[in-house]
Amino acid sequence: MSDWTKICSILAESKEAIILVHEKADGDCLGSALALAFSLHELGMKPVIYYPEEIPLVYRFLPGTEMLKIKAPGSLPESIPVIAVDCADKKRVVYDIPTNSPIINIDHHVSNDYFGTYNIVDTDAAAAGEIIYRILKDGGVRISPDMATCLYVAISTDTGSFSYSNITSETMKIASELLELGSDMNLIRENLYEKRPLSELLTIKAALANFCISEDGKLINCLLDFDTLNKDELIGADTDGLIGLLRATDGVEVALIFKEIEIGNVKVSLRSKSYVDVNIIAREFGGGGHSRAAGCTIKGNIHEIKDNVLKMVTPYLTGGINK
Amino acid sequence: MSDWTKICSILAESKEAIILVHEKADGDCLGSALALAFSLHELGMKPVIYYPEEIPLVYRFLPGTEMLKIKAPGSLPESIPVIAVDCADKKRVVYDIPTNSPIINIDHHVSNDYFGTYNIVDTDAAAAGEIIYRILKDGGVRISPDMATCLYVAISTDTGSFSYSNITSETMKIASELLELGSDMNLIRENLYEKRPLSELLTIKAALANFCISEDGKLINCLLDFDTLNKDELIGADTDGLIGLLRATDGVEVALIFKEIEIGNVKVSLRSKSYVDVNIIAREFGGGGHSRAAGCTIKGNIHEIKDNVLKMVTPYLTGGINK
Repeated sequence: MSDWTKICSILAESKEAIILVHEKADGDCLGSALALAFSLHELGMKPVIYYPEEIPLVYRFLPGTEMLKIKAPGSLPESIPVIAVDCADKKRVVYDIPTNSPIINIDHHVSNDYFGTYNIVDTDAAAAGEIIYRILKDGGVRISPDMATCLYVAISTDTGSFSYSNITSETMKIASELLELGSDMNLIRENLYEKRPLSELLTIKAALANFCISEDGKLINCLLDFDTLNKDELIGADTDGLIGLLRATDGVEVALIFKEIEIGNVKVSLRSKSYVDVNIIAREFGGGGHSRAAGCTIKGNIHEIKDNVLKMVTPYLTGGINK
Repeated sequence: MSDWTKICSILAESKEAIILVHEKADGDCLGSALALAFSLHELGMKPVIYYPEEIPLVYRFLPGTEMLKIKAPGSLPESIPVIAVDCADKKRVVYDIPTNSPIINIDHHVSNDYFGTYNIVDTDAAAAGEIIYRILKDGGVRISPDMATCLYVAISTDTGSFSYSNITSETMKIASELLELGSDMNLIRENLYEKRPLSELLTIKAALANFCISEDGKLINCLLDFDTLNKDELIGADTDGLIGLLRATDGVEVALIFKEIEIGNVKVSLRSKSYVDVNIIAREFGGGGHSRAAGCTIKGNIHEIKDNVLKMVTPYLTGGINK
């Protein structure tokens, strides 16, 4: 029995389905969820995607966002089948799933704990979008241009536009087939890559004006104090592009941004390239994340905070801790 | 007759071949030239790639760079077949090609003037690497992992890691096949995306320190004069990342960089997003390229050059020429 047939048989009784994505929704979970919702809609079902807040501005161009409903965290209605997309465990889905609701768990995280009644987990897939594509293709479901666009966004965002180490020959083959199926590359490009706010460029300008690189070139950091950010209305500006730029520099292992989001309150972003576990460092300051990308927020004087974080990072770079 | 058979028949007599790339060699011309050189080498020929200087640091990881020879500009030896890769016209090849040397012209630029004795020009190809791949595949040539790596670099660099509008279903299919053939994605990622020279970051810093954006937000430009570049040894620094960053800004249609590579000699890079054909503008100043990415080199005062180019660009943004 194909995964698609199995999904259909689980959903057959209720004719309804709740699709859930993880908190801090990204392109992969949103694109995957929407493509799946489109396919269920085509079957005459009433799929709904619940999310606790407005989805990020950058993903509002995705086709089908009218199927996304804002719903406060809490319990879900009883007995309606739930499809969790791109969620490693039950905690990631924001809502409490009633015990009598069947759960279909579709994911690609290595940390997935098989929390579903039915689990479709492929840790070799670069994105959940790859798995959804295969389920639909193997199930003989027609993939419309809108669905192709959603799945393309899912895959391209989770692979850093096909530049990360998670991509495989299969990833590129699927991307090729999605373009063939009518994925709207112009819409995607315009919205994902060509609408970066001017505030981001101004933040890069402000950050590079005073960036520091250690003598051995392994540690790069920059400091954005409240006055600088406030003057140009850059407090809310995204710094993902900036820290990516810093981290990409030859020889750099750790990149840090110190951003004073209010006076005396500093958001620290940490990225590493190969061996330093920045999650450990962020946790020392009450934050966390992944081994190569983490963050924390520290109260105090920005310069003292910078000194303290640098003191914590340096032994990992030179002393072989965690190397 | 396949293109490959034709190429082989042209080269058959001399058993030698000179492969030429364009000045300011990029990933596409170098990767394409190296893959081609590997394939000719396999046939027992002695291909050589001439280039007037050391190739950019970022591409020295490419397999086969020992086939690249530094040779001062001037005349090439008589009667040896020349294969020009990714060159729109004879001027781009740096060297003087003797009139008795057959020329094979392999390119994807719309401005290509068919200067070859035999021309393989496909302006729909996202990269010259795509054309080389097709020639080799159609010719039944075995593509080794090293060749696959070279061609993958060619395609991924000319498509901004598969994010530009020039990509097609075919581009992604070729990328998929190259990964299948052993293209070394880890080597590529580490070298292309994680070893950006510090000079690039310093160039972005210098450029953003004085960037200008027009009142309507459609035109963004920055000026790097010789003194600024020379002081920090940034003359040779790559500006592709910088211009990509400028162009990605929301609302920007045209991004320009004015780079004074020697006193009184200014390299202008032009990029557009949706509708301005910058190739036409570059050609007005003796340069060329593609409709969304072009360049020219102009002698004179950098500020006057900037004024002249801006004067030329503005009507395309506001007046609907070419819209």
